[in-house]
Amino acid sequence: MIAKHYKEMLNGKSVIRELFGYATERAKEIGEENVFNFSLGNPSVPVCDEFTKALIELLEKEDPIKLHGYSPTLGIPAVKKIVAKSLQKRYDLPYTEEEIFMTSGAAGAIAHAVRAVTCKGEEVLTFAPFFPEYAPYVNSTGGVLRIVPANTKTFQINFEKLEEMINLNTAAILVNSPNNPSGIVYSTDTIKKLTNILHRKAKEYGHDIYIISDEPYREIVFEGVDLPCISKHYDNTIVCYSFSKSLSLPGERIGYIAVNPNCKDAKLLIQMCGQISRGIGHNCPSSLMQYGVAKVIDKTSDVSVYEINCNILYEELVKLGFEVVKPDGTFYIFPKALEEDANLFSEKAKKYDLMLVPGDSFGCPGYFRIAYCVPTEKVKRSLKAFKKFVETEYPNR
Amino acid sequence: MIAKHYKEMLNGKSVIRELFGYATERAKEIGEENVFNFSLGNPSVPVCDEFTKALIELLEKEDPIKLHGYSPTLGIPAVKKIVAKSLQKRYDLPYTEEEIFMTSGAAGAIAHAVRAVTCKGEEVLTFAPFFPEYAPYVNSTGGVLRIVPANTKTFQINFEKLEEMINLNTAAILVNSPNNPSGIVYSTDTIKKLTNILHRKAKEYGHDIYIISDEPYREIVFEGVDLPCISKHYDNTIVCYSFSKSLSLPGERIGYIAVNPNCKDAKLLIQMCGQISRGIGHNCPSSLMQYGVAKVIDKTSDVSVYEINCNILYEELVKLGFEVVKPDGTFYIFPKALEEDANLFSEKAKKYDLMLVPGDSFGCPGYFRIAYCVPTEKVKRSLKAFKKFVETEYPNR
Repeated sequence: MIAKHYKEMLNGKSVIRELFGYATERAKEIGEENVFNFSLGNPSVPVCDEFTKALIELLEKEDPIKLHGYSPTLGIPAVKKIVAKSLQKRYDLPYTEEEIFMTSGAAGAIAHAVRAVTCKGEEVLTFAPFFPEYAPYVNSTGGVLRIVPANTKTFQINFEKLEEMINLNTAAILVNSPNNPSGIVYSTDTIKKLTNILHRKAKEYGHDIYIISDEPYREIVFEGVDLPCISKHYDNTIVCYSFSKSLSLPGERIGYIAVNPNCKDAKLLIQMCGQISRGIGHNCPSSLMQYGVAKVIDKTSDVSVYEINCNILYEELVKLGFEVVKPDGTFYIFPKALEEDANLFSEKAKKYDLMLVPGDSFGCPGYFRIAYCVPTEKVKRSLKAFKKFVETEYPNR
Repeated sequence: MIAKHYKEMLNGKSVIRELFGYATERAKEIGEENVFNFSLGNPSVPVCDEFTKALIELLEKEDPIKLHGYSPTLGIPAVKKIVAKSLQKRYDLPYTEEEIFMTSGAAGAIAHAVRAVTCKGEEVLTFAPFFPEYAPYVNSTGGVLRIVPANTKTFQINFEKLEEMINLNTAAILVNSPNNPSGIVYSTDTIKKLTNILHRKAKEYGHDIYIISDEPYREIVFEGVDLPCISKHYDNTIVCYSFSKSLSLPGERIGYIAVNPNCKDAKLLIQMCGQISRGIGHNCPSSLMQYGVAKVIDKTSDVSVYEINCNILYEELVKLGFEVVKPDGTFYIFPKALEEDANLFSEKAKKYDLMLVPGDSFGCPGYFRIAYCVPTEKVKRSLKAFKKFVETEYPNR
């Protein structure tokens, strides 16, 4: 019989998708260049040339039977070795290929990580503001996602609420730093406080609590910001990485899980990922993409444009009177709306062809997200629209 | 907590994997050319040149932001259109892009199809001999896979047993023709009998029963064999296709679901696939691969070698006294073992460096599978080993 549950999910509105749909229609009317579409987190810079060259060389020179052949369930060993070596060098942690599992992007990684460390009915905590897809990612495993309310002052962790919500049933903490949508990096101080709590609670409850660290924005960190390596602070850390943002390859679905080699069950968890794959139809990312990213493992696209865009927007938003925490990285900024209901605020912004995503679906009502992964000249042109929007709609502020 | 269920799955032995591991070790001792490794269904011919050229051209000429950009959850519309048009032309059925969902190979397709039409506890029937991964594919959805015993005389469907096993709780029938491991194509007569039963039972039970048709070997059909199109006989058919075997791209994980446009819920089922994806971390196959297969949609690798290999092996096996149904396609043959326990039979074959997979894991004890996707010269050289094996181990037959 048709699965009711999935049928009913179709009734759920995605605000981002609707906004994107509206922007597409509007672009047909007034031209794409006149729509300030800040709705989607799609990288706006091309992949580095080295990647394209590497793929062409593989296609021209490699035996196609090997190049396109079955990858072992855990990933191509030679690729996993290169990933491990890169992580080892960068973080001074003893990674080997046995702690690496190649995945279809971060979504594939999280799908495996949550299943590996959560039994039915157990809880995964995450911190608002958070990526809305975490809800289906976790809830479809039989686990339960619970949201720790935001610390809107800094968008660091709200520890008071965390202490209230963590309990015997907590299996894992899902962390996303640099954060979508706030752009904030959790400081070393935050990570220390978090891992201290987890150590204490794990001892109290008599079972491990895992950190699942979703790190697609790891390579997009702005000047002067220090991005702490969570695995250095906490053994039971499962890193979920994607090359989508760092190499501008979101459509290629390529990433990996790296379990901290100091986690006592690291090798077991990776082996388990192979079993989890069988039930969800995962069977590895594309073999060509695995070979391709291995060739440029320490390279990124030219992501410097995102910091330029951020600075332009941040300055103007402050000037216009917005309350806003300056991002440490990513290509998002998450200011407070100028009225209580960010949905109404975003609706009004559409009149000025500004596509701004209200914060409700990120678990943080009253705020809104700007995805500034667009050309800098467009960010500059949008400033006038922001000014007009604010002065017309909120004249008495 | 570490998920017990997946941990315990690690204790399950995979006979195929073990045999492949043994073959790899043995190759180190005596040279790869001397090991007759018939264990794995990995295509032995390269992808057609047109595909490689198409990929290189895409990489050289296409905007990388578009080429590697996010694919919509249901697949790239232009690609889905090309798939639909090809199916429409070939089968004279009114496919449009709205009945197509791009997947990570057949595994990804089946993962979605079963979830779409099976509620918790409902049953999916399949026919022995069957691809062993169907068990985790179905059982991980909350559904239950039940195996209809084989008709070992012809490897068509055992209708008597089907009538016994089908019940109010049957949600779908999972069909694989051309079949792995038997190589048999279900005849038009078989399909008619099957769909007649399903029509009758659906009416009796008052709910739809779906056919999930797993068709990765669709393009590998031998001379004179007619491959019936199941969708022409049954509206509620969900085709799960993969380019893995037809284009020799198993590592690229590219395929699709095509719901029969005459199925009243076709468009709904495709939309539901997008929701199912969210919970299993699927998020589309590689965008480059989607564009790539679209460029060669009606092409295949040169799969003619498989029929040549089949004929050589079949003739020799008959000569040696094996009871064997001649395959209609694929690159598998499934003879009866020369003793009751095919595991012992396969164990003995290893002494002659013949890697033969016992039929138990295909739900058909007493038989064994030969995967003859190897170079023809190797098939020819293996005949001597087969002869020696049979004459030495079974002298009194």
